[in-house]
Parts: sequence; C-alpha cells; structure tokens
Amino acid sequence: MSQGGSPAPGAPMTSDDLTFGVDIGGTKVLGVALRGARDLVAEARVPTPRSAAELTADGAATGTRSGDDGPPGGVDVADAVASVVAELAAATAIGPEPADGGLAPGSPPPVGVGVPGMLDRRGFLVFSPNLQGAAGSDFPKLMAARLPGVPVVIENDANCAALAERALGSARAARYVLLVTLGTGIGGALIGDGTPFLGARGFAGEIGHVVVDPSGPLCPCGRRGCWERYASGAGLARLAREAAYAGRLHHVVALAGGDPELVRGEHVTRAALDGEPGALGVMEDLGWWVAMGLANLSAVLDPECIVLGGGLVEAGETLLAPTRRAFGELVEGGPARPAIEIVPAVLGERAGAAGAALAARAGGLW
Amino acid sequence: MSQGGSPAPGAPMTSDDLTFGVDIGGTKVLGVALRGARDLVAEARVPTPRSAAELTADGAATGTRSGDDGPPGGVDVADAVASVVAELAAATAIGPEPADGGLAPGSPPPVGVGVPGMLDRRGFLVFSPNLQGAAGSDFPKLMAARLPGVPVVIENDANCAALAERALGSARAARYVLLVTLGTGIGGALIGDGTPFLGARGFAGEIGHVVVDPSGPLCPCGRRGCWERYASGAGLARLAREAAYAGRLHHVVALAGGDPELVRGEHVTRAALDGEPGALGVMEDLGWWVAMGLANLSAVLDPECIVLGGGLVEAGETLLAPTRRAFGELVEGGPARPAIEIVPAVLGERAGAAGAALAARAGGLW
Repeated sequence: MSQGGSPAPGAPMTSDDLTFGVDIGGTKVLGVALRGARDLVAEARVPTPRSAAELTADGAATGTRSGDDGPPGGVDVADAVASVVAELAAATAIGPEPADGGLAPGSPPPVGVGVPGMLDRRGFLVFSPNLQGAAGSDFPKLMAARLPGVPVVIENDANCAALAERALGSARAARYVLLVTLGTGIGGALIGDGTPFLGARGFAGEIGHVVVDPSGPLCPCGRRGCWERYASGAGLARLAREAAYAGRLHHVVALAGGDPELVRGEHVTRAALDGEPGALGVMEDLGWWVAMGLANLSAVLDPECIVLGGGLVEAGETLLAPTRRAFGELVEGGPARPAIEIVPAVLGERAGAAGAALAARAGGLW
Repeated sequence: MSQGGSPAPGAPMTSDDLTFGVDIGGTKVLGVALRGARDLVAEARVPTPRSAAELTADGAATGTRSGDDGPPGGVDVADAVASVVAELAAATAIGPEPADGGLAPGSPPPVGVGVPGMLDRRGFLVFSPNLQGAAGSDFPKLMAARLPGVPVVIENDANCAALAERALGSARAARYVLLVTLGTGIGGALIGDGTPFLGARGFAGEIGHVVVDPSGPLCPCGRRGCWERYASGAGLARLAREAAYAGRLHHVVALAGGDPELVRGEHVTRAALDGEPGALGVMEDLGWWVAMGLANLSAVLDPECIVLGGGLVEAGETLLAPTRRAFGELVEGGPARPAIEIVPAVLGERAGAAGAALAARAGGLW
C-alpha cells in the first residue's frame, strides 16, 4: 500500500540511497534511517502517545480533534511518527557521512511505517488491541497531511520485522519462517515457501490473540486468556507482580523502590541478566508460556525456523534457554519430528523499523 | 508422494476412468470409488482396527507381526485398507455401469489413501494421536505389499478433504480456505492464495493440537487441553457424559440404555436432530468450543471461508448455528472485520475419501 508522491517543484531532491522506517509500538515509536539496503545510520524514538495506546477513560475512540481526521489517538500517533521522521531527517542531514547530494531538513526520503494490528491493504487500521485509540485511522491520509510529497508505505509491524530479518537478519536461508515479536503485545508474520502469507484480507499473523485459556485474564481485544496476556511484555509484568506479591522477588522489588505494585518487566529482565534467582524463575515461567504458544503455532504452520523479535528478546538467553527447553517438550511430535530452530532476531527491537525502511525502499512490503 | 506401479504383464488393464480413495479415520476406514472427476459410484467401510487407533495396554508400538513391517497397528490398518479396496473392486466390477473395458476383480485402479496425523513427504507416519498404533509405519511399503502393481498415493486425510471440497464441494470460489474435519479427532488443511500450505515438512494443519487450556484433560498427543479434547467427536462424548451425569440428558440417557457412562456422541446428535432440549444444549456447548478454535485459527490465518467436514457435521444446523453465533462473538476484530463464512463440507464424511481418490487420479495431492 504505497502512497505515491514526488518532491514539490524547487524542493531539494532527497538522496535515493536513504529511506526511513518507523515502527509504532505499544510503548514507543522507534525510527531508523537506512542507507542503501543494509546500513542503519540513525535512530530516533519517542513514547507512544497514551491516546493511541489506550482508549479514553469513557471508552470512546470516535471523537476527533481536527475535522474528519478520525480518532484522536490516530492523529497523535501520526504526529509522533512525523516528529521521529523530522529527527531522523535532521540527524542524517548533519551526519558525519551525508549522502551524495545532501538532504535538506524538512524533505525526508521515502518513509515506511509499521503499525500493530489488523491493517487492511489500503493502510486503514481495522482493529488493534495495542493501539486501541488509533483503531479506525486512515494512516495514508494522516501521513500525507504531515509529510506532503513524501512517498509513504504503511504496513503491519510484524510483517516489516519479518522482511528485515529475512533480508538482513536471522531468517535468510529458511523458506518457512515464523516471526514472532514479543513486545508490549505479540505480533506475528509468516513466510511460507519463500513468500509472505498475508491471508485473505491481509490480517494473517494476529497470533497474540490465540486463546490459550478461556477463563484467563481479560485482553484488550475483548476476549479472555489470549496468548498475549501471558507471553508478552504485559504478560511478564503480570508474572512479575504475582511473583513479587508471593515474596519470590525481594531483590527486584527493591530495584522497583520497594513496592510490588511498581515492579515492571524491565526490572525483572535486568535482574535476570544479573543472575538473580527469583528473576530467573520468572523468566522460566515466561519462557514456558512463550513455548506453549510457539508449539501451538508450529502445529498449525510447521515452520522450519522461528525468529523471536521485539523488546523482550533483549533478555537474551535468560528467556531463550527456558523457551527452547519447554518448546522441546510441548511441540507436537516432539523428538519424532525434525527440530524447529528458535533464534533471536538479529536486529532485535529495531527489526520492525528496519523492515519498514526496506518496505519504503521497495515501494511496498514484498 | 506417489508410488509408481503398472499392471503385471498379462493382467487386464484397469479403466483409466476409475480411481479409489480410502480415508483412515480414528473410528472407521471409509472408501469410495470415483468414476471420472466427479461421480462417486461405490462405497465401502470397515471399523478401524483397535491396534491402529490405540496403543497396546503396555504402551508399546514397536513390536511387529511380520518381520520389518513396522508397528502391528500399521500392518492391521493396511490390511483394512486392502479389504476396503477389494470390496470397492468387487462393487465396481459388477456394478450396473461397468467402465469401458471392464475391471477385473483383484486388479484395482489407482488408489489414494488419506492418513490422519503427521505424514512426511515420503508417506511415512511420523506422529499420529488418533492412529497411535500405526505411528512409525511406512505406508507406501505396506500398501505395495498388499496391492502389487497398483499405483498408490498416500496423503494427509485433511489435505485430501480440502482437495475434494475445492474440486467438488463448497470451497470452489475461495482462494483462502481453512478446512476443518471434526471427526474422532480434528484435522485441518489450508489453502492460501489458491495453493495448499503444507509447511516446511508437510506437517502443517495439525490444528487439533492447539492447546486451549493448559490445565485441561490429557490428550493422546501427550499434552493437556488440546482443542481436539473439546471440539471433536471425542469432545462431544465428554460433554455429553458430563451433561448426563449432571441430569440434563434424561432422554439421551434412556436412548443409551439408561447408563450415563454409555452415552455416546451419536446419541446426542440424533436427539438434537429430534429437537430434544437437553441434547440441543450440549450441541450449543460443543458449538462454542468449535467456534473458539476457529476464532484462534482465523486470527493466525485470516481465511475468507471455513469449511467444516468430518462425521460431526452430520449434525447439521444443530451444530452449525451455535458455532456461527459464537464465532461472531469470538473472532478477533468482530464486526469491524469482513465476515468469515462457515459452511459445511458438501461431501460430508466422504470428503476425505473422495479427495484421496482425486489425489490418486492426479498422481499426487496437488
């Protein structure tokens, strides 16, 4: 879904060697500048506007701030994307290795935007549990108003991450790859026989919303016990608070200022990386839930390789080792079937943004 | 995975207009004779040998009856397939409209065999919760010994059913189709962008083994709370017994001879078709579980159409209506997304066998 555009008459030409990619997450909006097809040369991030990440207190997402621009959360997150783009433009124009022909601030190169949730093929956000305040937004229109004349490509965030890992990262050799982003929520993308599996309406890969316990905790999607409630950043926070209240996380509670209610996922991952036993126990539980969902998806999809991306993967082996162990026990067929490799995304939390830039470079995702 | 073969010298030629398909289920082995590409002209069935459907009491599946033929359950089920083929050969040779050139008993036309479980691309059964006693069997070899000179094609049962529904049945117009067989267990097959999605090793579509409650009942696959424990024939039997013991199925218990322990799924579906309220209540519960799993799969795969096959679909609207109602509430995106149609397999319980025959006709599945 590319939205055409060309520089206004008289405006300086942008370098055709540079593209920007911006990944809208539930917590942060992360942008990268890509030079050529491989080099990330700048990075910028701002927090995701709360109006986009959450519904307003009265549950409304239908008011508008500016005429027919759609939900206010969509307007705010489009502003956030534009500010990240401006920051990347400033950074690359004044960087140590300016592109041939230079880059004038204010006239960015092609931009790719990765959006979490069910995005239709026009770039319209149909449904998004982790960007609820922006559901119903027309992203091509919102971005065109903020980046006039700039070619903008809008794609699902996990599909972007899969593209990047396939082009630059850990999934290069495999033909059947499942990419799973463990961020605030869980995103998914599937490459089958070398091509993306997008589904009938482009909604495939909403893997965070496989229900793994119908009597489990309520999910922002409206159901109970979605995998995302257990195996994401939000799931880690819940597991961590439970462990804190159960008295199994003294060290982590101290890190968080002494109040179990203030324990966040980052406190646990940091303590786990330091080898703290209570935190390692929580990562073990988290790994079991990650593995449970990966085993479910493997039964359905039979990938040869699973790539884990998203913020949680920064926890490294403290998460990957228990995930691999539990997966070996949970995957259907167990030792009777060829092993399915589980590898971390080489691009880490930047996979989505890098893939969005690659999508912009190609004029579309695939 | 076709296994070549040609009639022995001097043997009468079989009609090239006839093929046989045999579907191995958890309960019965069902065969059909297909004349041309569309006409089912004969049918035969025998019960699935218990040695194939279940493990022996001591859990062994490694003993053999005849040298290196593999597990005894595989030998027995191959014998059952051969007896169904013999019955079809007899029926078609003496039928009212013999094919041009006739058909000599004992020299069957090409045969397709649909097998439940994880079948690799050679036709070797790697893992099968509903045909446990046959896991590890080399089906091409077993069939070659029983049908010398006959071309035999071995394929996954649900993939066969999908092929048949796409060629002859309810999925003809759709490009993204999920076929779900609700039999003793649950099978699945996926058509994406008009082509089958088989996975890296041909194991895709093991959808019965998506865990929907990690603390649920034990599954023959070794895990707990697989979807198949709730939404299959085995799931119906469990729901029915629970309702019987809870006193909600007086009429059905009477049908079963007065003992709640003897209530089987067929008693409930028959009573539901008669409009018995208690039985309709059980079908409502079953429909909710079917819908839960279909919603899970829709989040991952985004089909435009779901085709339900297998024995349970003989219950008709008593199952389909509550399934559609619950699915509308459970599918991610709900009313915000385009509807996903749920339709019964036109070929009913014969879809797998018809597809196996079509696969034999084509010399391979797709």
